[in-house]
Amino acid sequence: MSEMAIGMVGLGVMGRNLALNMEEKGFSVAAWDAWPEPVDRFIAASAGKQIAGFKDLEAFVKSIQRPRRIILLVKAGEVVDKTIAALRPFLEPGDLIVDGGNEYYVNTERRAKELAAVGLRFFGMGVSGGELGARNGPSMMPGGDRDGYKELEPILTKIAAQHPDGPCVTYIGPGGSGHYVKMIHNGIEYGDMQLIAEAYDVLKTLGGMSNAELADVFDAWNHVELESYLIEITAKILRKKDPDGKGDLVDMIVDATAQKGTGKWTVQEAAELGVPVSTIATSVEARELSFARTERLAAAKLLPGPDPAKAPALDAEGKKRLIEDVRAALYAAKACSYAQGMNLLRVASETHQWDLHLGELARIWQAGCIIRAKFLGRIKAAFDRDTTLTNLLLDPSFRDELASRQDGWRRVVAAAAMAGLPLLTTGASLGYYDSSRRERLPANLTQAQRDFFGSHTYKRLDKEGDFHTEWSAT
Amino acid sequence: MSEMAIGMVGLGVMGRNLALNMEEKGFSVAAWDAWPEPVDRFIAASAGKQIAGFKDLEAFVKSIQRPRRIILLVKAGEVVDKTIAALRPFLEPGDLIVDGGNEYYVNTERRAKELAAVGLRFFGMGVSGGELGARNGPSMMPGGDRDGYKELEPILTKIAAQHPDGPCVTYIGPGGSGHYVKMIHNGIEYGDMQLIAEAYDVLKTLGGMSNAELADVFDAWNHVELESYLIEITAKILRKKDPDGKGDLVDMIVDATAQKGTGKWTVQEAAELGVPVSTIATSVEARELSFARTERLAAAKLLPGPDPAKAPALDAEGKKRLIEDVRAALYAAKACSYAQGMNLLRVASETHQWDLHLGELARIWQAGCIIRAKFLGRIKAAFDRDTTLTNLLLDPSFRDELASRQDGWRRVVAAAAMAGLPLLTTGASLGYYDSSRRERLPANLTQAQRDFFGSHTYKRLDKEGDFHTEWSAT
Repeated sequence: MSEMAIGMVGLGVMGRNLALNMEEKGFSVAAWDAWPEPVDRFIAASAGKQIAGFKDLEAFVKSIQRPRRIILLVKAGEVVDKTIAALRPFLEPGDLIVDGGNEYYVNTERRAKELAAVGLRFFGMGVSGGELGARNGPSMMPGGDRDGYKELEPILTKIAAQHPDGPCVTYIGPGGSGHYVKMIHNGIEYGDMQLIAEAYDVLKTLGGMSNAELADVFDAWNHVELESYLIEITAKILRKKDPDGKGDLVDMIVDATAQKGTGKWTVQEAAELGVPVSTIATSVEARELSFARTERLAAAKLLPGPDPAKAPALDAEGKKRLIEDVRAALYAAKACSYAQGMNLLRVASETHQWDLHLGELARIWQAGCIIRAKFLGRIKAAFDRDTTLTNLLLDPSFRDELASRQDGWRRVVAAAAMAGLPLLTTGASLGYYDSSRRERLPANLTQAQRDFFGSHTYKRLDKEGDFHTEWSAT
Repeated sequence: MSEMAIGMVGLGVMGRNLALNMEEKGFSVAAWDAWPEPVDRFIAASAGKQIAGFKDLEAFVKSIQRPRRIILLVKAGEVVDKTIAALRPFLEPGDLIVDGGNEYYVNTERRAKELAAVGLRFFGMGVSGGELGARNGPSMMPGGDRDGYKELEPILTKIAAQHPDGPCVTYIGPGGSGHYVKMIHNGIEYGDMQLIAEAYDVLKTLGGMSNAELADVFDAWNHVELESYLIEITAKILRKKDPDGKGDLVDMIVDATAQKGTGKWTVQEAAELGVPVSTIATSVEARELSFARTERLAAAKLLPGPDPAKAPALDAEGKKRLIEDVRAALYAAKACSYAQGMNLLRVASETHQWDLHLGELARIWQAGCIIRAKFLGRIKAAFDRDTTLTNLLLDPSFRDELASRQDGWRRVVAAAAMAGLPLLTTGASLGYYDSSRRERLPANLTQAQRDFFGSHTYKRLDKEGDFHTEWSAT
């Protein structure tokens, strides 16, 4: 066998599927895993394909054409460091490593620097789309050395999801920018998922709707402005029967959501840069609140408040109105979430001098990844119209959409507050929106308090300067 | 002059005032600053007192009785490291340094370790109460070596704010726990301030109340369950006239609030430990939203939505009802905020093995500090009644208080949502509350989605184990 086009390290489901995807697009793949079993399984499964499996790391590296391109799909953190350390003795200057995991961008920047010092190139690449995306075409966010991207581009553009606007991959920027963008993508995904969960809860609990009715609603929404992968799979989930025969499967699933690093990191980064991301941050908190299920079940018996399930039943007309209101709320809150995520990316790009192109990011999220949606085409269009747009919501088309949707959004938030149904994320999105458009916030009082107890000074509306008042003096 | 009892490094307003406080309580103070001017000023201002000012660092250190006790009140971060490095050549084993600034606890832990290696002891001590607190009696949160605390205790208990339950200082715990507790104290302070700002906004904007009427309301609230320092100064602020004669001073202050490290760190720590702190996190975001004032003024002209100032006017009866509802909302949301802060402290204590005593923390916050309030006595009582209390809201007395207040709380959140008035923090607190008491959250759908696109598996209500479904199969 001649030299292989690319190397794949890590043969879990993501690595296997991405390797098969590459092979199918005409790139021969050398594959290695630290454990023998995944290698054997992969060799057995890829008979007749341009794939060579290795258990010996040196032989694996030597089989790849130079300068080598090696993609890692291993567990983020320590394992990446261990893998790089194991590879290094066999690599030669100019070789290029791509970390395709969900790594914290600070680690990626550290590794890129360490490897650059010995003449190796390092990319941090976000890969979204789950196992099916990896197999059939993911959305990919590679960040690193711009020249290095030229060597990856022929492969990445072929294996990426294909959209009428082009393959779902682009050069993101230098340093850890690729992993950073993937982190924010995941933060946005947390927001989308929680907003859908809250919409489901309102319709089910306040609307008294069955899973079949709900599935019809989500199916219908998947043909209008809400069209997206997550709405599509929600309808499918709601129709799925329990294999044990106990009705609908969704009703048998425990309501406790775990989380991994990316949501947490998004919240921490937003705090670091002072960027408000109310929708995303509360969606992470909603997961935490659900996860503490034992405490919650105990608290449910003790903490006073209305039972949302006992809200007055709705007639057909009332149900119809509620569905329209929830649809409006979901879209409006979702727009806030994307505005927050894009704003965080804008500030991070300025801070790190990454020169991110927000319209391009919206473009490559249009297919392949979990947040793929028609909606992203409108975001791309907004940033194409105005590349200096500081807030997505200020784009004329989004302003129009929010104008027509906000009465329904407000009614849903108000009704849920009265009924005792938590809409942490939909409500925080409204708070974010109304704060963003308020000419005068009550922060003047906060500034007066800070000057009162800490002499922090304040500014005046009518003249320049920093002022301090002896507030206790009469 | 005989040897001095204690050393003070840093003669800004906090250092000066704390030194004067110590001297007044009978402890002689050696004082040093890196700059000559503050030293000269302090010497001039303390003629006849047991205070010796130094410009020479060695002479300063030599003047203090051994083992030396030296308090630093300098800018957090680098300056602390520089100061310690400058002091070290003159210190002797057993000497004890106390950092009284708002330092990030991780830095404190690092320094304590470094200094322990050379036989020096290091304390991180939160000091709350602003300049007046430092002068007349602050609340202090010292963390470090337990034996070292015995040498600080005689001084700290004298200079602390005195409350019927004892002086407002206690041994917090080892390592960086003192600075950690101060960080959470400040996070809670952010929440309190934002909740008061929102209460002010509702009454002013939806209630159409004048500053004089508002001042009367806050004065009245300072004699009931809301009694606290921040409510007290709010009334004073609202009565203050503009020295330039342009009406009430509060109306002339720019509505843009800056923030320092502690709020941000609280949010980042909560995310790190997976503890929901919706009230505190949104109060940090509310500051960020206010701070971006230029963008906000531009957005106010563009983003659609109702103008809260145009909400229908209220008659006397309506105003009275609104005041009662806002009072209920403020108290209930505040209870959520303290529950979140205490919960974060509980989890941090378990994580770091600090053995924090939450009731003791509530006790030392009852006087001297910015969040001092009658309310803290009730929190102390709750943790005294049940030291294993996992959530403050589960305490029977808090449950009763929330039972009687939540209708008003819900009405305020709903009315503001309809009127376009942002109640980011009051609303997120309600979302937190209703999520905490919900037996069934919509997280079952979220888990189904995660299993659909990422094979993350889910748990079932009716049997043990981790399950995966091929959702797309029919």
